Amino acid sequence: MVSLVLRRGLTTMASLKKANKVVCIGRNYADHITELNSARPKQPFFFQKPTTSILLPGQGNVIRPKGVDLHYEVELALVIGKEVKDLDAADEKGALDAIESYALSIDMTARNAQNEAKKKGLPWDISKGFDTFLPISKVIPKSAIPDPHKIELYLKVNDQVRQNDSTELMLFRIPRILSDISKVMTLLPGDIVLTGTPKGVGPVVPGETMYAGIKVDGKELEEAKMAVG
Amino acid sequence: MVSLVLRRGLTTMASLKKANKVVCIGRNYADHITELNSARPKQPFFFQKPTTSILLPGQGNVIRPKGVDLHYEVELALVIGKEVKDLDAADEKGALDAIESYALSIDMTARNAQNEAKKKGLPWDISKGFDTFLPISKVIPKSAIPDPHKIELYLKVNDQVRQNDSTELMLFRIPRILSDISKVMTLLPGDIVLTGTPKGVGPVVPGETMYAGIKVDGKELEEAKMAVG
Ligand SMILES: [Mg+2]
Ligand SMILES: [Mg+2]
Ligand SMILES: [Mg+2]
Repeated sequence: MVSLVLRRGLTTMASLKKANKVVCIGRNYADHITELNSARPKQPFFFQKPTTSILLPGQGNVIRPKGVDLHYEVELALVIGKEVKDLDAADEKGALDAIESYALSIDMTARNAQNEAKKKGLPWDISKGFDTFLPISKVIPKSAIPDPHKIELYLKVNDQVRQNDSTELMLFRIPRILSDISKVMTLLPGDIVLTGTPKGVGPVVPGETMYAGIKVDGKELEEAKMAVG
Repeated sequence: MVSLVLRRGLTTMASLKKANKVVCIGRNYADHITELNSARPKQPFFFQKPTTSILLPGQGNVIRPKGVDLHYEVELALVIGKEVKDLDAADEKGALDAIESYALSIDMTARNAQNEAKKKGLPWDISKGFDTFLPISKVIPKSAIPDPHKIELYLKVNDQVRQNDSTELMLFRIPRILSDISKVMTLLPGDIVLTGTPKGVGPVVPGETMYAGIKVDGKELEEAKMAVG
């Protein structure tokens, strides 16, 4: 009984804030790598955002720290439903079974701070980790996304479409992503995994609003709709 | 009543594993910066270790991933007792009040992976974040450390002393550390902050045991004693 209740609770909105950790894949779409003049990774790499960066729907706007060149990166988020450790990259069923539900997310990035960290060989945590730097949508039930590698992510700034690509374009697919992460750090129920951003990242300035969403077979998912200032 | 119970629970050993996040200061002792040929930071920088890297006393040995050049870094850990946000660096009382208790910790590092990440401008999370990469001592009651900037940290590998320095040598002291972190990411009760490692870091190979501890006025603290393979 208790475990049933816990399991259900996991997919409620507030529970997104109870993630043990948020792990994000970098450079997972070829055209995004090109636009940032980055090197194409031979294997997935990842970083963490603190759970204190999570901004739930209705919690207000992203807070822009002084002097920060704030960039958006729209990404499909996986909400993990079970412990995942040393997952085999070939285990597609195991990977999909580990997903409890989905969400849409925006990996807000202090691009100037990140560029400086990259140049100096320093960690990315500051540039990725400010409070409110992870706006996230409502939880999307697993059944609403029959194939996570075949959905369309979009992000507009005001009425301008800036990002709009299919998750088909991921360089490393979800089984490989979960495999690589879980060979380093065990994933726990409630953990959130960001799967990388397609091309079109750029700045968002005060007064602008980001609208983001997911389309499945051309149809907009209600739960994924985001509007964040 | 409830909050009293929660507050007490916070300092129990298992509760260390319930930290929301672990935030670690890099390059906080001058001689350690020199030994790694690193640049001296103009301000504190920090990175996260996942809570899944925590290895409690009695939980066994550090697991060495294949091909990893495993290094120890002994560090004083702060266990946070209250929410800390935008702390003023001059607020010494606020900083010390935010500390619930202490622990000793070893920031295990895959040095070869970290060096490669630095060279490529990639995040440090993989090199710092493997399961078991954060052995930690029992909780040290706050009263046992009257001045956290005046204790001696040591680490031996087998019977060889490798690290042995006073926390007086920190470049950035605890108020500045907590201020800088809390201006990026809010610290929550239970969070753990690692304050940097003194000189003497180096490799530990299978079969060797790390012994670490804290001396206050030359007297060994029982709770801080660690022995990890
Ligand atoms: Mg991203
Ligand atoms: Mg965490
Ligand atoms: Mg360290």
